[in-house]
Amino acid sequence: MGHATNPAFRLLDDPDDQAGARVSRVGGLTFWAETLALHTAAAREFRDVTDQVAEVVRRSGVAQGWVSVFSKHTTAAVVLNENEPLLLEDMGSMLERLSAAAGSYQHNDLSRRVGEMDPDECANGHAHCQHLLLGSSENIPIAGSRMDLGRWQRIFLLELDRPRDRQLVVQVFGA
Amino acid sequence: MGHATNPAFRLLDDPDDQAGARVSRVGGLTFWAETLALHTAAAREFRDVTDQVAEVVRRSGVAQGWVSVFSKHTTAAVVLNENEPLLLEDMGSMLERLSAAAGSYQHNDLSRRVGEMDPDECANGHAHCQHLLLGSSENIPIAGSRMDLGRWQRIFLLELDRPRDRQLVVQVFGA
Amino acid sequence: MGHATNPAFRLLDDPDDQAGARVSRVGGLTFWAETLALHTAAAREFRDVTDQVAEVVRRSGVAQGWVSVFSKHTTAAVVLNENEPLLLEDMGSMLERLSAAAGSYQHNDLSRRVGEMDPDECANGHAHCQHLLLGSSENIPIAGSRMDLGRWQRIFLLELDRPRDRQLVVQVFGA
Repeated sequence: MGHATNPAFRLLDDPDDQAGARVSRVGGLTFWAETLALHTAAAREFRDVTDQVAEVVRRSGVAQGWVSVFSKHTTAAVVLNENEPLLLEDMGSMLERLSAAAGSYQHNDLSRRVGEMDPDECANGHAHCQHLLLGSSENIPIAGSRMDLGRWQRIFLLELDRPRDRQLVVQVFGA
Repeated sequence: MGHATNPAFRLLDDPDDQAGARVSRVGGLTFWAETLALHTAAAREFRDVTDQVAEVVRRSGVAQGWVSVFSKHTTAAVVLNENEPLLLEDMGSMLERLSAAAGSYQHNDLSRRVGEMDPDECANGHAHCQHLLLGSSENIPIAGSRMDLGRWQRIFLLELDRPRDRQLVVQVFGA
Repeated sequence: MGHATNPAFRLLDDPDDQAGARVSRVGGLTFWAETLALHTAAAREFRDVTDQVAEVVRRSGVAQGWVSVFSKHTTAAVVLNENEPLLLEDMGSMLERLSAAAGSYQHNDLSRRVGEMDPDECANGHAHCQHLLLGSSENIPIAGSRMDLGRWQRIFLLELDRPRDRQLVVQVFGA
């Protein structure tokens, strides 16, 4: 059971645990939200979460509407693209080219920082800059009780920082 | 009638054909979705679809809510910007500068690829990389039965690959 | 009272003025939209509007659903990131590097332009190009009557052009 004791979380490893779903039903409409928790393994990991999002859509029972996938982080993005391993490396190389991890960022000069910092704060200016170009969420239409994705479209959480605990809010709405 | 036989499609050339609309009405609310099919003419074509999206909004009868425009592709993006011909060239030049068509992409080395490929697969690593920076959808508010766009805002399908058949899911929701 | 006479506007300086809210209530669901007006002070200003958006969410009374923040402009973006002053400078520097204000843009050659122009049109090709990479809106989930943001996430209107009057459409939907 473990994490079932924390109703704010759903672990991706336990897709049948529905304790975490927040559900409102209003006159034939459903709002269904789950917070998926995952741990990324590496910088620039493209974690394919399509199947987990599809499971949330299935559990919601919504036939027509939307699903929104939202990252609660400023250094981990939600993107849609093709899951082809060589391409994922190409996309990572482009991001590194546009905003290099070893580049010069004032944000990385902790001696000049004011305001709150995590105890394990580390140099991640590049990750914030890359995130700015990618965005925090995607909305996908639902038709016929399934996501209406094109043949090559997959949903990724893209880790731009180091390996970290991450949360995605997956919210389904519709009839 | 032609394509009216395929309920999944709407051709942009035939705006009065409503056979393809998927409609759910629940207690005064409307979900109205149409899949627009179009054929792009060139790489980096900015196809202005504002008027076609406005027609879908009009057909839906929704007075307040949203319209979502979603590309079912990983090498064709949905963007909002100004439709000024010189500017469209400038934006294309920037994309080429950030991820050049003639650049080096592992994805383009078909000899190393594993997994599914289209019979007409061609070198389009740059198009996937540009798509990553642009995104797959935009959501536009509806107020007073019209899209609440600013004076200069137009909606584009942006072709990043070669001329291809493309589909946009236009979903309207509201009261 | 002043701007209360224009129902299309809400000034950020007057958070208690509700004259501008457009509200539809349908069978237990609420659509609540306000147009926030603000004046930016400088190019590349990151204007933190999180508290104003939170106020709109509070006024709407929605407990579960979404809030959409939409820029009505093609040279001012809506982004989520951390509000750390040094980082905001880093992100501005990256945007300048990707599409420099002093770069060469055909859009800036007013002698070649056709179509409508503002009387005060000025060289802003870079601002349009940067906007293309950033997008016009963000959708944020609402849970327990609050935005379900992560610890570091803040909402910004990002001015890419010169100081200007700007409008954000903030639309809340839910139960």
